[in-house]
Amino acid sequence: MKLARIAYNGPDGASARLVVVQPEAQRVIDLATTERLKLERQGATHEAALRLATALFPASMTAALSLGEVFLATARRASEDADEEAILALADVRFLPPVDPPLLRDFMAFEQHARNAGKQMGNSPSEELFRRPVYYKGNPLTFIGHEQEVPWPSYTNYMDYELELGLVIGKIGSNLTPDEALEHLLGVTIFNDFSARDIQGQEMRGLLGPAKGKDFATGVGPWITTHDELDLTNLTMVARINGEEWSRNSSATITWSIGELIAYASTGETLWPGELLGTGTVGFGCGLELGKKLQPGDVIELEVEGIGILRNRIGQPQPRRWEPQPRASLIQEDSPER
Amino acid sequence: MKLARIAYNGPDGASARLVVVQPEAQRVIDLATTERLKLERQGATHEAALRLATALFPASMTAALSLGEVFLATARRASEDADEEAILALADVRFLPPVDPPLLRDFMAFEQHARNAGKQMGNSPSEELFRRPVYYKGNPLTFIGHEQEVPWPSYTNYMDYELELGLVIGKIGSNLTPDEALEHLLGVTIFNDFSARDIQGQEMRGLLGPAKGKDFATGVGPWITTHDELDLTNLTMVARINGEEWSRNSSATITWSIGELIAYASTGETLWPGELLGTGTVGFGCGLELGKKLQPGDVIELEVEGIGILRNRIGQPQPRRWEPQPRASLIQEDSPER
Repeated sequence: MKLARIAYNGPDGASARLVVVQPEAQRVIDLATTERLKLERQGATHEAALRLATALFPASMTAALSLGEVFLATARRASEDADEEAILALADVRFLPPVDPPLLRDFMAFEQHARNAGKQMGNSPSEELFRRPVYYKGNPLTFIGHEQEVPWPSYTNYMDYELELGLVIGKIGSNLTPDEALEHLLGVTIFNDFSARDIQGQEMRGLLGPAKGKDFATGVGPWITTHDELDLTNLTMVARINGEEWSRNSSATITWSIGELIAYASTGETLWPGELLGTGTVGFGCGLELGKKLQPGDVIELEVEGIGILRNRIGQPQPRRWEPQPRASLIQEDSPER
Repeated sequence: MKLARIAYNGPDGASARLVVVQPEAQRVIDLATTERLKLERQGATHEAALRLATALFPASMTAALSLGEVFLATARRASEDADEEAILALADVRFLPPVDPPLLRDFMAFEQHARNAGKQMGNSPSEELFRRPVYYKGNPLTFIGHEQEVPWPSYTNYMDYELELGLVIGKIGSNLTPDEALEHLLGVTIFNDFSARDIQGQEMRGLLGPAKGKDFATGVGPWITTHDELDLTNLTMVARINGEEWSRNSSATITWSIGELIAYASTGETLWPGELLGTGTVGFGCGLELGKKLQPGDVIELEVEGIGILRNRIGQPQPRRWEPQPRASLIQEDSPER
């Protein structure tokens, strides 16, 4: 099953609706509409049917996934038995990010990426990458969906893409083993961790990880393909820039298994439905590794086997308003090592 | 005004309610109840009054703050004219984290902390700290409120506290200047960035910033004091462990102003109501700087002038279930530098 969120413009303005996508039939099925019509046929009034259908299929994917099996089983039934009224042509819909996670982690689980990126910066990958799955936390408030434009922040001259898998958590859990963890994976989406390389390189010297280098935008979509339809151990991953192939690799090259990544995230804390874990960039899956930069207007297509294509165009640089001015240290140090 | 969230146990289980705290009167005022009673006096039916009161004062502080001025003005009015029925004794309430942010950033804005922590690890603070306000993103899903226990994850032997201010954003904005930014600050809460120093030190060598060293818990509370009641440029900040004072300092020692921190966070992206920004630890505001460690059962009190006291007890170490096993590199490198 392929789950997505699409935009709908009504009298209350724009809102999001949950759909099942059937790319082979070039159509999407509106889940709340399907469920409402079914309830009405069973004798519910329009208002009551709408109330229950909207509770099962709200605008938020996180809210829907938080219902657990009830949501998934109802979505499956609805997608197998859709009314004409609930069907939209794929060509007519505008996709939103399929997830709205309460937390975003992004791992660096592909050794080749770390080696290639390190070479560009004149260093070797940290030994730490082989000791545990390292991750930073990203900004889920700036997600952009399929065909949405990538903002170009004022502070960068070096825009890059990153070809990753996005792992969508479907079930609450903590302190999971890798085997258990796979049961908590709902499915996979395509994840483009857009990066402002110049500021990223500078700010990471502060040792707190990427911030302004990543926070401005992340591409996610076009939909989530559920786990059962995918061979996670060998998915072909491709990036094309303006139609030209720049990156091609496989999820088979990952250092830590997907079960290990999820288990690690769940260690010592609770992993919630709707959370998103990026795998990190597959080897040769970004411009930095290839000595290439993106330009305003470039069109980035990320394609992952069994999922689809996530396409985004890079926007024009934004004007600068304010930036921090460097300042002097205020503290006189008398320690001998300085 | 002091805003908080408290726990209420009803027929539907535990829920959160928004309150105004009046510590000098040793009481809290339930905002939804106050508003409902006012609407009923104006002729609304019970159900309609409850519907509107709950829309104005929902369980989520982020949802409430997203209403903007409407929420704040209504809360002020309600707190000045509360019914007996809406008043609870301060001693009887159980506090929840006052905020439920969609994103958590934590800066490192106090030079003295960076110097002290660096000395313990044998290095100088990064020059980057003087070029821009650096931050990492934290985990808002593991917030604990006043008097809630701090979980001790299985993977650490070195638990620490961090004495910080938590800046609560009250208004949407982007690309703000520092002057404008202060208008987007709702108020300040006390922020205890609990840290597992052993794993934090290791994972940060992977250069993606803190992860398991911080993600397990953050103490926040007991409430938010609105901006107008505070002199942000000189707040006394104190930490006591089991009643003994370990840390005392002032917000006056900050390297970047609070307006600059908020403006920087808003650069190139949208800052949303309900977001929380930690300032980073004030100088001498954690055990690492003092060569001290916390133990299970320790009681940590953080006190900030004009806000109050945030108190948390450290829990017992959790059993270990699974941990990642180090693995070998899979890639043969032929580059001369290796």
